[in-house]
Amino acid sequence: MSINAAALFETLRAATSDGVGITRASYGAGESAALDIIEAKAHELDLQTERDAAANLIVTLEGSDPGLPFLTCGSHLDSVPQGGNFDGGAGVVAGLMVLAGFKQEGLRPRRTLKLYGLRGEESARFGKAYVGSSALFGRLSAADLAMKATDCDRTLGECMREVGVDVDRVKAGQPLVDPKDFAAWLELHIEQGPVLVARGLPVGIVTEIRANIRHRTVECIGSAGHSGAVPRWLRHDAVFATAELITHLDRHWRTLLERGRDLVITTGIVTTDPREQAIARIPGRLRFSFELRSQSKETLEAFYDLFLSECRLIGEERGVEFKLDRRLESAPAVMDPEWVKGLRAVARGLGLPDEEIPSGAGHDAAIFASEGIPSVMIFVRNEHGSHNPDEAMTMDDFAAGVAIMRNALKEAAA
Amino acid sequence: MSINAAALFETLRAATSDGVGITRASYGAGESAALDIIEAKAHELDLQTERDAAANLIVTLEGSDPGLPFLTCGSHLDSVPQGGNFDGGAGVVAGLMVLAGFKQEGLRPRRTLKLYGLRGEESARFGKAYVGSSALFGRLSAADLAMKATDCDRTLGECMREVGVDVDRVKAGQPLVDPKDFAAWLELHIEQGPVLVARGLPVGIVTEIRANIRHRTVECIGSAGHSGAVPRWLRHDAVFATAELITHLDRHWRTLLERGRDLVITTGIVTTDPREQAIARIPGRLRFSFELRSQSKETLEAFYDLFLSECRLIGEERGVEFKLDRRLESAPAVMDPEWVKGLRAVARGLGLPDEEIPSGAGHDAAIFASEGIPSVMIFVRNEHGSHNPDEAMTMDDFAAGVAIMRNALKEAAA
Repeated sequence: MSINAAALFETLRAATSDGVGITRASYGAGESAALDIIEAKAHELDLQTERDAAANLIVTLEGSDPGLPFLTCGSHLDSVPQGGNFDGGAGVVAGLMVLAGFKQEGLRPRRTLKLYGLRGEESARFGKAYVGSSALFGRLSAADLAMKATDCDRTLGECMREVGVDVDRVKAGQPLVDPKDFAAWLELHIEQGPVLVARGLPVGIVTEIRANIRHRTVECIGSAGHSGAVPRWLRHDAVFATAELITHLDRHWRTLLERGRDLVITTGIVTTDPREQAIARIPGRLRFSFELRSQSKETLEAFYDLFLSECRLIGEERGVEFKLDRRLESAPAVMDPEWVKGLRAVARGLGLPDEEIPSGAGHDAAIFASEGIPSVMIFVRNEHGSHNPDEAMTMDDFAAGVAIMRNALKEAAA
Repeated sequence: MSINAAALFETLRAATSDGVGITRASYGAGESAALDIIEAKAHELDLQTERDAAANLIVTLEGSDPGLPFLTCGSHLDSVPQGGNFDGGAGVVAGLMVLAGFKQEGLRPRRTLKLYGLRGEESARFGKAYVGSSALFGRLSAADLAMKATDCDRTLGECMREVGVDVDRVKAGQPLVDPKDFAAWLELHIEQGPVLVARGLPVGIVTEIRANIRHRTVECIGSAGHSGAVPRWLRHDAVFATAELITHLDRHWRTLLERGRDLVITTGIVTTDPREQAIARIPGRLRFSFELRSQSKETLEAFYDLFLSECRLIGEERGVEFKLDRRLESAPAVMDPEWVKGLRAVARGLGLPDEEIPSGAGHDAAIFASEGIPSVMIFVRNEHGSHNPDEAMTMDDFAAGVAIMRNALKEAAA
């Protein structure tokens, strides 16, 4: 009994299709369906499975010396709304293929191997990323658990409880694992940017992961008024003020890029108030999300200061106020240099390119790395980017990534 | 039996309150409730009422020579969502007070007086303004009737039918009245801008009404993508592109104002797609409404060309497309100079200021004027603008406006 990766991906896709892409909302039905599918497949393959207190899925292949720190791999099973089938899912399917392969070959490594099917990596639903991996290490606060979902009136804590999380334990900040028990974290993931495609590489070995600063909601508060009757100089138009803010930030961004800084800025959600908006009404309120990412903490903080300063200046000039909700942040992460070296050697041994690549997107690997666990990632080439239904990874490229992971884990577990 | 204006306004407010302001959606429940309240009051006052084939309310005080062209007054009874109680309602209550006053005094003028309680003046629900008055003159097209409501899945035609409109007749473009039967149209309305307040005037006589061009929905179409993984030069961000468009238009607007042109620009509705938006997703789509108003048709068309040209340029630069829906427009209207002169004389006779004022907002009076009916408006001072719940008109200022209307109609009807 082995795994047909293409068929397993198709099963995941069909079960969580939303008609446009796939939706596996963090701590929601689609995510749970994906965990169930992977768990059922693991059972077919005669692998042990369990759910931890944070309702993550763990698939285990016990080693001959279970007292040794174990090797872990995996990724997340949630998605953004109308997302793609490979973001996260690829790393879990890859891990399952490696464990199943060892099992099938009758290989019994010394070290125990564990595959994590993590929940809640995407920030789309609650504004906070890496929830499932953060829960492992007791890193969620009561404020995190009180965050509201974007698609219903429930909090993160409530949605977690619904899928079986021991919320009291998570809320108490109690770690579910001891980082010292982890020998390493390996995560295969599709590249969500265009670099591997542009450079004609099937795979890449990740060296570092960008940090980010986020506000789920910035509210621009001006004054509503009749669109025909109020002259320009008496307007406090929330849309025009925010357009100017974004345009100024875009200009600063361009300048920083010209100076060689690493930075991306996104306002993924923008909306006037549906209850009061009208074509003939000067918008008095506009809400938008705000996200900065950079490999450099300094660049991030400098740009964030610029953002605050533009909010103040435009606010004063236009008689509007920009109200910021809680600032959320993730630290940058450096992948373990020894593992990077090791994976590059394995790739060369397989006749594959061994190029290094930085990660623009965030990944659970950043959380494992920040706990001192040697962590590394393999990126697989993927067309059309990610967080959209058009992700396109070939099964050949995927197999190349799985082969690197397999050989590296085999070596390390022996 | 006379009218307590404050009490009648309070009845209208209480019946159509939405908790924040009042909502009397065009061809919806709140609007119908307002018509019913005015009709019931007219019955109490022993005035004749009827509904025309467009479901507008007509209150009649028959003259001694009913063959003469009749004098009409009135305004609209619908509102924007969370709007104010006086926008439209003031003109209808004013007309009812005048007719009731004549009735009570036993005055039987030669000319018949008719008060219209019009429906569908606001564009908030269907994107099209002046629907009720346009229907009077057979000026609605099948395309107009097919426009979708913003708050439900029904069309204008369907919503009209629900409140009793003879939709087939309206759709056929059949006029319900002959403009030659109208001796004049008088409309009292709160000023929706700040001029009367700033100049300390209780009332003003309107000389002209601004034209407008509108798109209910402009859609900016770029490409969605992962917010961390796609560098700036590969992005086709619909929000950043639209922010740049608005900022450029704002700059052109400022320049035109410096040259003394009359213009206002508004994007009252802006939203990313709720089904696909996420903090960590580059927005691939943004929808926004677009409205221009000016007293000059030339300024409007020139600015509209500038808008199209900016859409093209920014579209090319950023790899996005701006898709425009059907262009809607209203022509500018000049109020009848003889009536303006007459109302100014009446105001002076009452010891009131007789200042002229242009209207930035559109009004049904523009439709009557465009049919060749001598039309004129009285603006009443109102604080905090309009299309918001904070409209504030004093009963003293209102009484001044009603007095001008009363004396002018008495003179013209005699």
